[in-house]
Amino acid sequence: MEVSYYHCLQTPVFSRRGRVKFSGGFKYGCGNNKKSHFQVLACTPVADKGLSFEKKDALIRHGNQAKFMTAIVVGQYVETLLASVKWDDKGLAVAIAQNVDTGAILMQGFVNRDALATTVSSRKATFYSRSRSQLWTKGETSMNFINVHDIFVDCDRDSIIYLGKPDGPTCHTGAETCYFSSVSKLLEHPEDKKDTLAMTTLYSLETTICERKDEISRQTEGKPSWTKKLLLNEKLLCSKIREEADELCRTLEDNEDKSRAASEMADVLYHSMVLLALKDVKMEDVLEVLRHRFSKSGIEEKKSRNHKTRDQPSC
Amino acid sequence: MEVSYYHCLQTPVFSRRGRVKFSGGFKYGCGNNKKSHFQVLACTPVADKGLSFEKKDALIRHGNQAKFMTAIVVGQYVETLLASVKWDDKGLAVAIAQNVDTGAILMQGFVNRDALATTVSSRKATFYSRSRSQLWTKGETSMNFINVHDIFVDCDRDSIIYLGKPDGPTCHTGAETCYFSSVSKLLEHPEDKKDTLAMTTLYSLETTICERKDEISRQTEGKPSWTKKLLLNEKLLCSKIREEADELCRTLEDNEDKSRAASEMADVLYHSMVLLALKDVKMEDVLEVLRHRFSKSGIEEKKSRNHKTRDQPSC
Repeated sequence: MEVSYYHCLQTPVFSRRGRVKFSGGFKYGCGNNKKSHFQVLACTPVADKGLSFEKKDALIRHGNQAKFMTAIVVGQYVETLLASVKWDDKGLAVAIAQNVDTGAILMQGFVNRDALATTVSSRKATFYSRSRSQLWTKGETSMNFINVHDIFVDCDRDSIIYLGKPDGPTCHTGAETCYFSSVSKLLEHPEDKKDTLAMTTLYSLETTICERKDEISRQTEGKPSWTKKLLLNEKLLCSKIREEADELCRTLEDNEDKSRAASEMADVLYHSMVLLALKDVKMEDVLEVLRHRFSKSGIEEKKSRNHKTRDQPSC
Repeated sequence: MEVSYYHCLQTPVFSRRGRVKFSGGFKYGCGNNKKSHFQVLACTPVADKGLSFEKKDALIRHGNQAKFMTAIVVGQYVETLLASVKWDDKGLAVAIAQNVDTGAILMQGFVNRDALATTVSSRKATFYSRSRSQLWTKGETSMNFINVHDIFVDCDRDSIIYLGKPDGPTCHTGAETCYFSSVSKLLEHPEDKKDTLAMTTLYSLETTICERKDEISRQTEGKPSWTKKLLLNEKLLCSKIREEADELCRTLEDNEDKSRAASEMADVLYHSMVLLALKDVKMEDVLEVLRHRFSKSGIEEKKSRNHKTRDQPSC
């Protein structure tokens, strides 16, 4: 079977030393046999189901060279997906990588057909570098891959979300995400050069609580805030958590209004997060626990079943 | 003072009827006076501080027409910002609108210099339409504006996040966000045409709980899940919330390990969210309460101080 450029999962390039190099940067030994096989990275559950990718013996051509290999070819539904994207005049679409637990936007790049197909197959966020004119998988140098759990295409079909879990900081600067320059701060405090990560409400609150904890260890002066008081008094903190949980229950038992329930839940969350700060536990860790318990995806569901304890109800 | 195209906040276009139309779609009366003034939409707190924008009498030129107006010109730091962005060969950068409370990616568009300056000034997410070659403010037709709280630029300075709060659904289809086509679903259940919003862990769990609630009202058959049992038994639910809050406290009091604290917090969150589902309260509402209490931005802080009750501690 002849496999065209478009059908091949990754574009193989034959090096002078008889090795197969992939545009994604991975290398596979090829040997000297006329009929040789190469390993393809990440045999995903999707590939296992045979829905999107199939393993086939295939003749791969490149320049004057041609070799038989066990190739993975794109299946019907991936073809449908790739054909449905509105690629721009350069054959590209925008791809945004987002942390599945925290919602943080990790980075944004561009993808072409091959980059998207590679991500679907390998489940590692892969982009097309416009400056280097080649595919690159985030993490191929730093090993901080972004493990993609699902991919979403927007209503115009020209913008893509890679929803996944990063192995470590995403930015080449070592920052958690690439977005750490706040315009508001530039305008209001232009002299302050400290980075400010783009953070949504929950993580902004978590950061504030952690800052208060750091201030305690640095013994800064001034009237202590409520958060500091809680951090310094475990008995007070625990009595507040129990009290707020009780008040949340009362909004249901006493049929109080919705705004009261939202307010009490906010109290439960805030006080519990102060406790988490004392225990050095991140909300991201908590959400990861919830994802493993309740995620509907096949792999996650299995993990959840295998590791379930008495405290982990099914949903 | 002569104001160049680049220095003017919005590009004014003189219509045949002697009115000033802005590329963002807003219209302002101009009168017949030689020296006339126009109102500029949204005098933001940033503008009040005089840091980023200044009101000045300015001569605005367009074609053969020239009029004196009170214009708002971009100040020093906005100029610094605009100059620091790496605009592509078409003068554009990617802009992603994200919900500040939920972290949901609402939409993605492109911005040019004017679109970004307009967003900084008006605090309404504004983009550049490549198909119509003009600025457009999200919501100018639907009134579902995205109220921008902060803007972040990435490490490469060619990608921007508008972090804000939408007035309503963002997508023109009426969906909450523009991302509702899941590739995993396409590959695993190609026959299922139902939309699947891109959702992070917390909102995915919230959706699952709401689905269980809907199933109860539809009286579907099958063994009830734990969530359904809780939804049907308020006494059991409240006893579980109090119990889990107590167990969370014990992880601190009894010096239990971090994984235990994360697990107990996951229990507190999950059971509390079942209660919220019964009360028809969304996690987004809870996070909005927390943002109003704890946000550091000037406006939010004032609101928090003005509306604070005994249950709303400062951070």
